[in-house]
Amino acid sequence: MFHHISEVLSDNFIGKEVALRGWIYRKRRMGKIIFVVLRDSSDIIQCVIEKKKIGNEKFKELDKVGVESSLEINGVIRKEERAPTGYEVDVKDINIIGPSYLFPITKDKSDEFLLDNRHLWLRSREMNAILKIRHTVFGAIHEFFRENGYYEVQGPIFVTGAVEGGSTLFEVPYFGKKAYLSQSAQFYLETFIFSLERVYTIAPSFRAEKSRTRRHLTEYWHAEGEVAWYHNEDMMRDEEELIMHIVQKVLEEREKELKFLNRDLEILKNLEKPFIRMKYEELIEFAQENGINIEYGDDLGADEETAITKKFDKPIFVTHYPIEIKPFYHRPDPDNPKVVLCHDLLAPEGYGEIIGGGERIYKLDVLLRRMEEEGLNPEDYYWYVDLRKYGSIPHSGFGLGVDRLVWWLAGLSHIKYAIPYPRTIRRTKP
Amino acid sequence: MFHHISEVLSDNFIGKEVALRGWIYRKRRMGKIIFVVLRDSSDIIQCVIEKKKIGNEKFKELDKVGVESSLEINGVIRKEERAPTGYEVDVKDINIIGPSYLFPITKDKSDEFLLDNRHLWLRSREMNAILKIRHTVFGAIHEFFRENGYYEVQGPIFVTGAVEGGSTLFEVPYFGKKAYLSQSAQFYLETFIFSLERVYTIAPSFRAEKSRTRRHLTEYWHAEGEVAWYHNEDMMRDEEELIMHIVQKVLEEREKELKFLNRDLEILKNLEKPFIRMKYEELIEFAQENGINIEYGDDLGADEETAITKKFDKPIFVTHYPIEIKPFYHRPDPDNPKVVLCHDLLAPEGYGEIIGGGERIYKLDVLLRRMEEEGLNPEDYYWYVDLRKYGSIPHSGFGLGVDRLVWWLAGLSHIKYAIPYPRTIRRTKP
Repeated sequence: MFHHISEVLSDNFIGKEVALRGWIYRKRRMGKIIFVVLRDSSDIIQCVIEKKKIGNEKFKELDKVGVESSLEINGVIRKEERAPTGYEVDVKDINIIGPSYLFPITKDKSDEFLLDNRHLWLRSREMNAILKIRHTVFGAIHEFFRENGYYEVQGPIFVTGAVEGGSTLFEVPYFGKKAYLSQSAQFYLETFIFSLERVYTIAPSFRAEKSRTRRHLTEYWHAEGEVAWYHNEDMMRDEEELIMHIVQKVLEEREKELKFLNRDLEILKNLEKPFIRMKYEELIEFAQENGINIEYGDDLGADEETAITKKFDKPIFVTHYPIEIKPFYHRPDPDNPKVVLCHDLLAPEGYGEIIGGGERIYKLDVLLRRMEEEGLNPEDYYWYVDLRKYGSIPHSGFGLGVDRLVWWLAGLSHIKYAIPYPRTIRRTKP
Repeated sequence: MFHHISEVLSDNFIGKEVALRGWIYRKRRMGKIIFVVLRDSSDIIQCVIEKKKIGNEKFKELDKVGVESSLEINGVIRKEERAPTGYEVDVKDINIIGPSYLFPITKDKSDEFLLDNRHLWLRSREMNAILKIRHTVFGAIHEFFRENGYYEVQGPIFVTGAVEGGSTLFEVPYFGKKAYLSQSAQFYLETFIFSLERVYTIAPSFRAEKSRTRRHLTEYWHAEGEVAWYHNEDMMRDEEELIMHIVQKVLEEREKELKFLNRDLEILKNLEKPFIRMKYEELIEFAQENGINIEYGDDLGADEETAITKKFDKPIFVTHYPIEIKPFYHRPDPDNPKVVLCHDLLAPEGYGEIIGGGERIYKLDVLLRRMEEEGLNPEDYYWYVDLRKYGSIPHSGFGLGVDRLVWWLAGLSHIKYAIPYPRTIRRTKP
């Protein structure tokens, strides 16, 4: 039986013989001894391999192979303060399973090279840590929704209409016709609430964005929720709890990985509800006071969001956007129909938008008027319009960019580090 | 505060005043009384609405609106054996939120009509039950993997190569170049195991299948796992446990829904490990003995699988397929290289394949030889080949068609009932 390295990094294992398997992380020879730092999915451990113990032939073979060779070892655990993780293995025997020569990734490789070799770079301790954080984030999202009475559903990926504007739709030839790739499951989630009331989905969404910023992907993971009878404030309350739940889980399960990535943990540990709430109008004033060049009516671009959110160490809900800069389906505020009952959630520390959400128009006449104003043909959205014809109800929803959330939580410099295989305007490989 | 209908269907609520909200499932008037059966996401309840209690105006309004109107009601719960769920509400007040007139779905609508109106048909008690079973299945898959040390990861959807053969790839114009939609995350999952050892994903997969059978979709949900150091048998053991776990969960949480769908529960309740195991060779013999027209070397089509699996009430693992009828990456059996160390899992009762999996080739020379035999260019798969160059290890994996699993578990006649928005060669709407 094989142990994981993290299990044997313990005083309980001192003097015990264990079997481990993994890959060579570092290797150096000093005469008749080879020091191997072995890595597996859990951690690393130093292994001391003496020629007289494993025999001449295996020693020679080990001497020849390079980093990232896979091997099985047997040996006894002992304490060793100078070893990278505090213990080492006094090795009795080894088996090389898959040799590796001239592993392409060496120090100081360019970012582009590491992207071309992402399939190998995943093995790095950085990517290993990020992937574990990502795993915890996805698990925490499912957990939150399921514990709060949401049903998991799946909208289609092949669709016929736009949610967020036609210019960023990917078109796919489809058996002599055409289809598009979903930008958001929102409209479909709205159909589900008439059956299940509270629904969520986690699925890829697609945007043919031409933007080359540090936060745009053409394919990203989208966690979306939609709730019958909810108003804008109800939805924001659930989102706040969702984000708090994810942060707690990540701190509980991934403190080691966050520290490895040099994440400032205090900001996460100090996070509390309620988050900051600002009307769009207030945000513009705040930005102008801080020397940011923006006018009432402008949409926030990546640069403005970065500049604004650098001033905060807590997420900010921005509400009451002008009706002109938001898609047609947002419900106008009955007290001031020039703005809509929506919210964006901006991550602090320069990260910016991670959630967009709000209350949907539920009156048929209002929806048809807004579609007309935006030049949309209701026939293209017949099924979306139907929801307002047959027993409509107030409802709200939101979409969370999961990769962006990981990007912020892990404190990464660019979104491409937050997703294992980033897709951008220029990249579909590997 | 509003209750869900399922909560108040209880002797504890008799004589208590409650607030409920939902949609009109059925309605009939008898003079000065209107009987409404109200539905919400949880259940249905009969409501007795007297003109003298709610007033003339509201009574007239209620009389006018049709099924699927949304409303809020207040009233007192009482026992009523003749009511559809054993209790009824003696209504004190109502509010009509969203009226509905001439709801398009009436009795005896065609299948095609119900597909065109799937956004409304989701409200049916059948679809409500299926969606809840689906929710439980997705949850059970995540739970099993996470409890067994698997990390959740995401492969890209935009890819440049085929996993299962190029003829069923969807091509997407991609900023002046082209990309394909993923048929399976398998090759990417193989890259992750060098970092995380055990990984899984649940994501949509795409196949441009021209087949019009009762089990094919162009877009389906795929749960895939891949494990370092696993051989074929190890993988099958995990899959068996996964299926058992899902079945247990569905029986625990969804017995009511399964009964509503008239599912034969005994078959699910009697399910035990180990599942049936048959070599491909034995399966062909079995099929021939049972009068099915099939030869050694034939791939099993939908019709053959239906005919064969009707003879069983337990899933069947079929192993050791001839090398010619399986994709290049399957590991040839060292004891008989004419067959590969793979497995399909066939659901019983006529359902057929729900899982495909097996051990992957991990020796570089074997992989390159198999690619050559199949006329594939290793350069197109440079990153897949790299995995065998740098510290290769034995490993195995599998893919589960989640919609097919739901189809079988819920005992449905066609796959289109197992997924909320089915996509087939002729359908991308709604």
